[in-house]
Amino acid sequence: MTAGPGPTRSGSHAVHRYDLVTFTSDFGLDDAYVAICKGVLARFAPRATVVDVSHGVPPQDIRRAAAVLARAVPWFPPAVHLAVVDPGVGTDRGAVALRAGGSVLVGPDNGLLVGAAAALGGADQVVALTDDRWFLHPVSATFHGRDVFAPCAGRLAAGAPLSDFGPDVDPESLVRLPPPRVVTGAGMLSAEVVDVDTFGNLQLAAHPEDVDRAGLAGVVELKITVPGGTTRALRTRSYGDVPPGTMVLYVESTGALELAVNEGSAAQALGVVSGDQIELRGA
Amino acid sequence: MTAGPGPTRSGSHAVHRYDLVTFTSDFGLDDAYVAICKGVLARFAPRATVVDVSHGVPPQDIRRAAAVLARAVPWFPPAVHLAVVDPGVGTDRGAVALRAGGSVLVGPDNGLLVGAAAALGGADQVVALTDDRWFLHPVSATFHGRDVFAPCAGRLAAGAPLSDFGPDVDPESLVRLPPPRVVTGAGMLSAEVVDVDTFGNLQLAAHPEDVDRAGLAGVVELKITVPGGTTRALRTRSYGDVPPGTMVLYVESTGALELAVNEGSAAQALGVVSGDQIELRGA
Amino acid sequence: MTAGPGPTRSGSHAVHRYDLVTFTSDFGLDDAYVAICKGVLARFAPRATVVDVSHGVPPQDIRRAAAVLARAVPWFPPAVHLAVVDPGVGTDRGAVALRAGGSVLVGPDNGLLVGAAAALGGADQVVALTDDRWFLHPVSATFHGRDVFAPCAGRLAAGAPLSDFGPDVDPESLVRLPPPRVVTGAGMLSAEVVDVDTFGNLQLAAHPEDVDRAGLAGVVELKITVPGGTTRALRTRSYGDVPPGTMVLYVESTGALELAVNEGSAAQALGVVSGDQIELRGA
Repeated sequence: MTAGPGPTRSGSHAVHRYDLVTFTSDFGLDDAYVAICKGVLARFAPRATVVDVSHGVPPQDIRRAAAVLARAVPWFPPAVHLAVVDPGVGTDRGAVALRAGGSVLVGPDNGLLVGAAAALGGADQVVALTDDRWFLHPVSATFHGRDVFAPCAGRLAAGAPLSDFGPDVDPESLVRLPPPRVVTGAGMLSAEVVDVDTFGNLQLAAHPEDVDRAGLAGVVELKITVPGGTTRALRTRSYGDVPPGTMVLYVESTGALELAVNEGSAAQALGVVSGDQIELRGA
Repeated sequence: MTAGPGPTRSGSHAVHRYDLVTFTSDFGLDDAYVAICKGVLARFAPRATVVDVSHGVPPQDIRRAAAVLARAVPWFPPAVHLAVVDPGVGTDRGAVALRAGGSVLVGPDNGLLVGAAAALGGADQVVALTDDRWFLHPVSATFHGRDVFAPCAGRLAAGAPLSDFGPDVDPESLVRLPPPRVVTGAGMLSAEVVDVDTFGNLQLAAHPEDVDRAGLAGVVELKITVPGGTTRALRTRSYGDVPPGTMVLYVESTGALELAVNEGSAAQALGVVSGDQIELRGA
Repeated sequence: MTAGPGPTRSGSHAVHRYDLVTFTSDFGLDDAYVAICKGVLARFAPRATVVDVSHGVPPQDIRRAAAVLARAVPWFPPAVHLAVVDPGVGTDRGAVALRAGGSVLVGPDNGLLVGAAAALGGADQVVALTDDRWFLHPVSATFHGRDVFAPCAGRLAAGAPLSDFGPDVDPESLVRLPPPRVVTGAGMLSAEVVDVDTFGNLQLAAHPEDVDRAGLAGVVELKITVPGGTTRALRTRSYGDVPPGTMVLYVESTGALELAVNEGSAAQALGVVSGDQIELRGA
């Protein structure tokens, strides 16, 4: 295994190889689907290491997959990021590869990849995966992870140039997910829950500057309102700073606001799920 | 890591090494069992990459494991496929290694491997794993994954010849699972559900030729009967072709018939599980 | 990838590199946390293979994680074992690396690593991870897996010497978990359930010598008492020796006593969980 990707010369063309492929899907880990895609990757990129980001995305939940992927990609060295959450498989939805920040994202054009590209500094180049010489044939109507995306990701990892896979696409024309709702008023911030993790921590669509904009910069004790009722939370640096059972609002490790309960679950305490709106005011 | 397996010369003997080991079990991912087997593999085949097929097989469900494994293996380059679902551990059930299609399958002789060998083109050679020089000692009565199968799989991946592990066995003498039931009559096809995936899609034991044999070749609208009642389904190319909530029958990506509900779960809609029988007639 | 770790010369210093990193956490597999740590590991140790031990430890359950880790580590070749179950993140709990049996353990000083070090033959050297040149900056208050432990583990795998990470610590001063309860009396053994696996098998804190000490050495039929009632079990070599549904007590593959039900779940049959006490007497 070589030490990392980088330009090497093959004849007169620079070839970029990637030693790392990440893989995100809604396939779950119980069926053979993830392994089948890894088998295909191994055929085309036998030297690449495959790292699972998550296969526990709820079936066809593009929004959740996009959030997980965007959180993960900035921490990787240059890699090919394969992502397949694909309710439109077998329809005319597009298939794309995006180069961003020295990495490549491969998947359906349904909003899944755009946030991750932004997290890597924005897409430099986007191509439509239309050249079916790179696919496995016959291409099934139901499993493009195996027949389209994994072989393209594998071949990109092995050094095939992006422009060989199809025509350039205007990055502005990519399908985008509706942005999460954040509303600020006088002394009020309302933010959508964009992610609920294993610990029941709630990642909000809002950032510290939204708190400032709402005039809550100096407020330490907050009133939290959800459809099911109200509760209180403390602004703090970490959930380690407060007694067990206390709800806290803090800036989590990627810069977003997060609600958590020390040694407990904020999701359970508030009865909320991804997509719900949470209102914060001074208590 | 070398580019793939292949014959290389060591003295006067051809040595086959495998860079890839797949691993299927009912161990789950919460306990240490999978990791322990991977630790043993790493001791004997430090250069091999291990790919998990599934460890989410229900405990001791040989049939489900055999179905998952048989679906996965054709998509891999030559590999050692280690599979351990082993209700008979500690009894006199056999332990075997099968060479099929350039790959090797390792596991208990309880029906687990036969379908996968068929999916790879059939077993060329079968040996009983009887030579205990290859095992970890003391061999426990309860964990042959660690003490027998993983060390043999690792040593096979590292290039040990199959015939060193024990005597040849007649492939016809291997334990086989009862075949799934498929019955066709005039205008009627009854097929067993052989697999239910994460999406609730139902893979049937039947293939398109069974539909033809039942005289349903041109029928687009079908009546589906299960123990709990009847419903309708459309024959189509893919679930992407119909409105959400519609049940469809189509040829899935490995050539078997599958029932699915677009953006829904056929398993939930019909209330069926693996092993249930589903009857199809013209509507 | 080289064949294994070992001393190599770089200038005048012996450098120990590890090709293998194992990873244990309570992060679950649905979120991006595990992948983020692997991305960080790949930045510092691009040639190392990462093997998951378990990420399915219940949130913040140090005791369960310590049991899983201690069971796994003896089966690996020399490796860096990264473990992060860290309810004290953001407080003043220590961060440590331990060298034991040719391997290195990295994680919080909260009892998580001590059992694994003992399983590897005991810690030869312990250092506090205090030198923040090795961390990712800014160090978050909530995710030291990413900012402290993974970068240190990666750099240790890549050959950085243990003593560069901080001052030596007396192994005796490490935080320890309370030992599980084992009580023996005349004809009576009471032992804590230390682990419940996927199959519902109950690993007890007791060993065969405790059975002897209780005067139950020759007893084949046992009366099992739990808070919910009593039942019977047979002493045997393996659950494969008895008819389905029979409860058995045997020495499991790491030398501890285990209760199991052949083709069933002892945990379900007895209604017990980890931490519960089980009493054994002659029937």
